Amino acid sequence: MVQHRVWIKPNNDEVYTMKTIESLFSEAVNRTQGSVIRELLALASKPDIISFAGGLPAPDLFPVNLVQKAVNDVLSKEAGNSMQYGATGGVEELKDALIVQDKDLGIWNHPENILVTTASQQGLYLMAKTFINVGDTVLVGNPSYVGGLQSFQANGASMVAIDSDEDGIIMTKLEETVQKLHQKSVFPKFVYVVPDFQNPTGTTLSLERRHELIALSERYDFLILEDSPYRELRFEGEPLPTLISLDQHGRVISLRTFSKTLIPGFRLGYAVGHPTIIKAFAKLKQAIDLCSPTFNQFVLQHILLSGEFSKHILKVNAAYKAKRDVMLAVLDTYMPKDKVSWNKPEGGLFLWLTFPKTYDCKTHFLPCVTEEKVAYVNGSAFFPNGEGTNTARMNFSFVSEEKIEEGIRRLANYVKRNT
Amino acid sequence: MVQHRVWIKPNNDEVYTMKTIESLFSEAVNRTQGSVIRELLALASKPDIISFAGGLPAPDLFPVNLVQKAVNDVLSKEAGNSMQYGATGGVEELKDALIVQDKDLGIWNHPENILVTTASQQGLYLMAKTFINVGDTVLVGNPSYVGGLQSFQANGASMVAIDSDEDGIIMTKLEETVQKLHQKSVFPKFVYVVPDFQNPTGTTLSLERRHELIALSERYDFLILEDSPYRELRFEGEPLPTLISLDQHGRVISLRTFSKTLIPGFRLGYAVGHPTIIKAFAKLKQAIDLCSPTFNQFVLQHILLSGEFSKHILKVNAAYKAKRDVMLAVLDTYMPKDKVSWNKPEGGLFLWLTFPKTYDCKTHFLPCVTEEKVAYVNGSAFFPNGEGTNTARMNFSFVSEEKIEEGIRRLANYVKRNT
Repeated sequence: MVQHRVWIKPNNDEVYTMKTIESLFSEAVNRTQGSVIRELLALASKPDIISFAGGLPAPDLFPVNLVQKAVNDVLSKEAGNSMQYGATGGVEELKDALIVQDKDLGIWNHPENILVTTASQQGLYLMAKTFINVGDTVLVGNPSYVGGLQSFQANGASMVAIDSDEDGIIMTKLEETVQKLHQKSVFPKFVYVVPDFQNPTGTTLSLERRHELIALSERYDFLILEDSPYRELRFEGEPLPTLISLDQHGRVISLRTFSKTLIPGFRLGYAVGHPTIIKAFAKLKQAIDLCSPTFNQFVLQHILLSGEFSKHILKVNAAYKAKRDVMLAVLDTYMPKDKVSWNKPEGGLFLWLTFPKTYDCKTHFLPCVTEEKVAYVNGSAFFPNGEGTNTARMNFSFVSEEKIEEGIRRLANYVKRNT
Repeated sequence: MVQHRVWIKPNNDEVYTMKTIESLFSEAVNRTQGSVIRELLALASKPDIISFAGGLPAPDLFPVNLVQKAVNDVLSKEAGNSMQYGATGGVEELKDALIVQDKDLGIWNHPENILVTTASQQGLYLMAKTFINVGDTVLVGNPSYVGGLQSFQANGASMVAIDSDEDGIIMTKLEETVQKLHQKSVFPKFVYVVPDFQNPTGTTLSLERRHELIALSERYDFLILEDSPYRELRFEGEPLPTLISLDQHGRVISLRTFSKTLIPGFRLGYAVGHPTIIKAFAKLKQAIDLCSPTFNQFVLQHILLSGEFSKHILKVNAAYKAKRDVMLAVLDTYMPKDKVSWNKPEGGLFLWLTFPKTYDCKTHFLPCVTEEKVAYVNGSAFFPNGEGTNTARMNFSFVSEEKIEEGIRRLANYVKRNT
């Protein structure tokens, strides 16, 4: 079926040396790595495998009726505008609705400070494209979300990883690192942080550290990229203030998305920040995709105005809390606790397993999938410097409660045999 | 209302020099120009102005029922998959449908050679990001589509413009230019061409020149970016073969979109080419927006499978042909033919006016809008080297037939007074 056409040297001319396609590629292609996780997901996608590897929302929670009703509304009331080209910054009616429903915008609660993006991933890319020249330094958590690292890498960033613990990035380590870099005349452009129920670990940046991070950004004059896709998925405990709400100077750019709270298939999110930054984002977005899907923006606006969105989130959170609780309970039942430990995230999609130092989760991935038909993502995939070899990311949102129990039992069997 | 927060120097530390936001911007931001046309459009958007300036499809032709029916189908039959994350390369079911309906793919008629894009604009950006290092040369028509130029500029391309006439880019000029560049050891990465009813001029690259261009790409070893958003909007005459169908070596990358034939608000198009190139596009797209909207891809697939799409295009073409004919007829009636000439495009959305050499359409834009309430885009906006000062792009798809007549009458009045 596949047409494996080769790049053929033309016969009619011998003067010019024929180049291969690869030799024509830009540095950007060569320095960007495809996602290792996507490769693991392919391996784990067979139907008999119970996979905790992905990061997908549960499809049975997708609000089909809400979407159907909103689409009907949009098509009957504003078909023309919803199907036409839209402003690069986003549909104004949607931006107004975002401001009404999002209480975490801080001083930036105005349409001029918002740009609708083709989901968070585009926000990550725009941030990198706007601030990174090849070789510029970005500070990232150790571990960090791989999609963020990819966007920075595609734009030539040099990444410096800062250690984290159960309260997120350690601020004393961050300050030490920045001081050392400044001594070498390296001025990091921004710090990348997922403050709420981080991907991959599920940890939340503590209130104290949020204040410290803002103070450090002022003292050492760097920007903060706050990427918060899981913020609304809180099962218990009090929400902590967003970084952007704590900032008074415009140093924080905050990324939100509807991929986890509503549906990923609309590819809609938004970036919030200083209008000078939002304008630069818009200029680049014009060249990148002109505007995000207008139709989807109108449908989303109708969903937000329906008043059903907050009820939907409550439903999602109840379901994910139940799944997390099942995973915690069966880990407690089956896993050898002298060898394996785990955290108890207050929300989000993931929890984090830690194995004995000598247990390499990457080496054990394939045998575990083959022998026990259960999959995870090895934690080292999220460490820019390759650390975290004895850790694993476990997703609890996608798999059913029954399969969570069975999958953890299988994983525990494998671990008992191999530790 | 607007929060004009300034970037404030913190008081608590005098050691580090505070930077402005602008000083942190990347070279990419600084070298990218916002679209001049978008600024003109803002000026021309008042309700009493008849604007031929935009490039929008007519909203009354948007297939509301087709979309409604397809959405209902998708939500009742495959809600889960359509709302979930999708593969970066595109939804497989859509790619299969594209191959069935697109007869112009040449040897590249296989899913592996197709990447679904967030409309053509993303294809332009991916092409530049994949092949351009800062300073690399791209050959473009003189004039060219501004959105293409923006994407190349955002990635640091050096653009060399090749003169065109009523049959498109002049191949002898192209060859001369390439030879001169090669003598200086400059090897252009690709030629950018809109072969069918080009934006802005409405001209079509002749069959002879298509063959010449392919031969030149082999002789001088460059790639060709074929951007063909208007191809299906042919009112008369025989379609010419696509460049990609004439190519045997994988040197052509072809961009298609549903923005002009169906609706722009879905932001869906696709890139076709050698699998090595498509794979590189996918790797970068992962970092840029992960995947194009899955929901829209499923809806589009259902529309294509409904068999109604080709009927819809016939309806669109009949309407646009009628509008073009009205514009040609009233130009003939009102415009001073000793001073102004125009072409008769066989399809697309635009025709091209040429004024006396001394008549600067940019200078006359604002007075014309103010005095006669009619707007166009000055042609020089599409010339990378600022030529074409006595030309104007006229859109005939958006405005009603009645307003086309009134608008041309007004424009003729202005021109008569000022030439």
